[in-house]
Amino acid sequence: MKDLPDSQEIAALMDEIGRRARAASAELAFAAPEAKRRALEVAAAEVRAREGEIIAANEKDMAFGRDKGLSAAMMDRLMLDAGRIEGIAKGLEAVAAQDDPVGAVLTEWDMASGLHIQRVRTPLGVIGVIYESRPNVTADAGALCLKSGNAVILRGGSESFYSSGVLAECLKAGLRAAELPEDAVQLVPTRDREAVRQLLTMTEYVDVIVPRGGKGLVGLVQREARVPVFAHLEGICHVYLDASADAEKALKVTLNAKTRRTGICGSAECLLIHRDVLDTIGQGVVRALIDAGVELRGDAELQKIEGVVPATEEDFGREFLDMIIAARVVDDIDAAIAHIRRYGSNHTDSIIAEDDAAAQRFFQRLDSAILMRNASTQLADGGEFGMGAEIGIATGKMHARGPVGAEQLTSFKYLVTGDGTVRA
Amino acid sequence: MKDLPDSQEIAALMDEIGRRARAASAELAFAAPEAKRRALEVAAAEVRAREGEIIAANEKDMAFGRDKGLSAAMMDRLMLDAGRIEGIAKGLEAVAAQDDPVGAVLTEWDMASGLHIQRVRTPLGVIGVIYESRPNVTADAGALCLKSGNAVILRGGSESFYSSGVLAECLKAGLRAAELPEDAVQLVPTRDREAVRQLLTMTEYVDVIVPRGGKGLVGLVQREARVPVFAHLEGICHVYLDASADAEKALKVTLNAKTRRTGICGSAECLLIHRDVLDTIGQGVVRALIDAGVELRGDAELQKIEGVVPATEEDFGREFLDMIIAARVVDDIDAAIAHIRRYGSNHTDSIIAEDDAAAQRFFQRLDSAILMRNASTQLADGGEFGMGAEIGIATGKMHARGPVGAEQLTSFKYLVTGDGTVRA
Repeated sequence: MKDLPDSQEIAALMDEIGRRARAASAELAFAAPEAKRRALEVAAAEVRAREGEIIAANEKDMAFGRDKGLSAAMMDRLMLDAGRIEGIAKGLEAVAAQDDPVGAVLTEWDMASGLHIQRVRTPLGVIGVIYESRPNVTADAGALCLKSGNAVILRGGSESFYSSGVLAECLKAGLRAAELPEDAVQLVPTRDREAVRQLLTMTEYVDVIVPRGGKGLVGLVQREARVPVFAHLEGICHVYLDASADAEKALKVTLNAKTRRTGICGSAECLLIHRDVLDTIGQGVVRALIDAGVELRGDAELQKIEGVVPATEEDFGREFLDMIIAARVVDDIDAAIAHIRRYGSNHTDSIIAEDDAAAQRFFQRLDSAILMRNASTQLADGGEFGMGAEIGIATGKMHARGPVGAEQLTSFKYLVTGDGTVRA
Repeated sequence: MKDLPDSQEIAALMDEIGRRARAASAELAFAAPEAKRRALEVAAAEVRAREGEIIAANEKDMAFGRDKGLSAAMMDRLMLDAGRIEGIAKGLEAVAAQDDPVGAVLTEWDMASGLHIQRVRTPLGVIGVIYESRPNVTADAGALCLKSGNAVILRGGSESFYSSGVLAECLKAGLRAAELPEDAVQLVPTRDREAVRQLLTMTEYVDVIVPRGGKGLVGLVQREARVPVFAHLEGICHVYLDASADAEKALKVTLNAKTRRTGICGSAECLLIHRDVLDTIGQGVVRALIDAGVELRGDAELQKIEGVVPATEEDFGREFLDMIIAARVVDDIDAAIAHIRRYGSNHTDSIIAEDDAAAQRFFQRLDSAILMRNASTQLADGGEFGMGAEIGIATGKMHARGPVGAEQLTSFKYLVTGDGTVRA
């Protein structure tokens, strides 16, 4: 890579980007909903119009990726073709069509003093998005930030440098067409990692960081950020088969939770089976998983079932992101809850139970961002929740939790109207 | 002070407190509303029963304060008498009587897939409260944290050490009576400042810090905390008299905003006057302020009015907390907005205007936690907002903003119910 200025130059560059983003955010905060919608629609048209340019840029990225020896999976994530580019354009249009969250009155009431109080949505300000190889994040994340009235600083992966560059240009073209400040979307123009370090500590300019990527990236961001972070480090999702589980639901949900797609954060990584249903439903589910090609790493009791591989302590609380699942027999629901508290990651956990009291206990005593009953953990997704596009799933408890869509990228303010009202 | 163990001992002590708080919070999170109410009611009864003990402890604190040479104002904040103790007991009962925020369904909806999705309030976890001389904060903050299902670690001022100790014991007595974990309320048992440093960096155990005190304390906490902070550094509240201001409202509101109580964060520190009403409403308001004993530090134009003292650049953006106000003439509403953006602290700002468009512009283009129209900035208070007791007023944009009551000390989780529902 030739673009390696020294860290002082990077600091000056990032400071300038931050300053511009802050200035743009002040204007974008009260932009008309129609203007933001138009910016996104024009950006979508621009993406379609520049298909050839995007593919040419992507070819440069793919060549860089090959030189770097990226895995086939990584190369696939990086790759853009006509179909994926159309998907990006459609994604921009979908966000354009969403309701504008800014200015919505969340609640309002009157006081005896004569005050009328409204709580109104307002943007957060400036959002930093740090991501890895998927260039589409440039468009998706940029669009959500814009919709929610926030300025965004995008820091893509070094592999998607050129593809992301063209996509960011499409967003800027949209902003210009809508007469909105172009600095509302900025892509960090260097691959230097020092830029990430700067971005994480720019408390004056950046209100929140959203990392999109693997555990390595998210862990780094969580450790080093001096600004709030919306993220999940891992998705260690559990499925617990209660004594009251329905056999068919248990089978259907567990198979889907593990095997539909193993590489997403909502895929199940651990199966807990109530002792009372071990020889009935449990056997059936274990069999079905193994037959589906899953490596099932079980505790001593489960090892009695043919095909079960011994689990080590390290297999619990582990995110396999693969056709592997850890499994354990528990004596009762409280043991399942204790296991999830200890090994879970507060992402998504599901109970398979017909007994309302059991489900209630699971819902009350666990505090994962998403708790499910008789439903697959793979449903943990903004789209499946009807919340529209999401910038990610957060497991923290502050501000944003679960699927983070445009609404969760906002804050609020109180608007108070009196009539010469004073305090006694 | 004799209690000065070394920093390793303090670290071990705080670690133990954090561990206990975390364990208590897991239980308190699903405590029955009746149990929490009972704990607070018993605590109130306990405060009344221990009046003599509280006064004796407070006398030790007052002696310590005198030795330390505290100002009369500080000594007054520290002092507890029968009336104030009854006020503390009533405050506990008021929080007991509030609705329990935990478990409330914030919103719920159904998806075509068959999922039923609920967004339900859940406590934040562990809250650290760091405060100065007022011992009543021990009871007030402790009660709000308990009501919202959070464990609390209280770190009172060294001056209120003994008074706070007895008040914390009253809360613990309430917890015991309600069979709730006593560790849900812990008072740091040392005056050593190292304990504060520890508390601010215990990311594993503490979810949020609430500092209650002057700019020195809040600034320290904001600089050094590695956990989120709900606070306002300063309340630099502005009153802007628009060209469309009503004379009577302008006079009434400005006088109240400045003079009702000068020492609170909602008191006005700066007056902005639209040029068009300078010689009419402006003159009258300036006169009335001066007649009320306010030192008005004005710009060159205002200095033409008798009794106006020249303002320096440092007087703008300054929190006087005294019978002093800075004042400036502005050419139009945008100049007022620009002034507030530059010098304000995002706490509370008020426009006096009959023109709806002007008020709308002020509300849209500023992003203070609280914006008011024709109302006194002194109304910026949880009680005046009908939100019940507050733990403070926050100016940040993440999570909590404006008056922070029991509701804002909560997060949420998604409870998702299916019927064997899987993802396609």
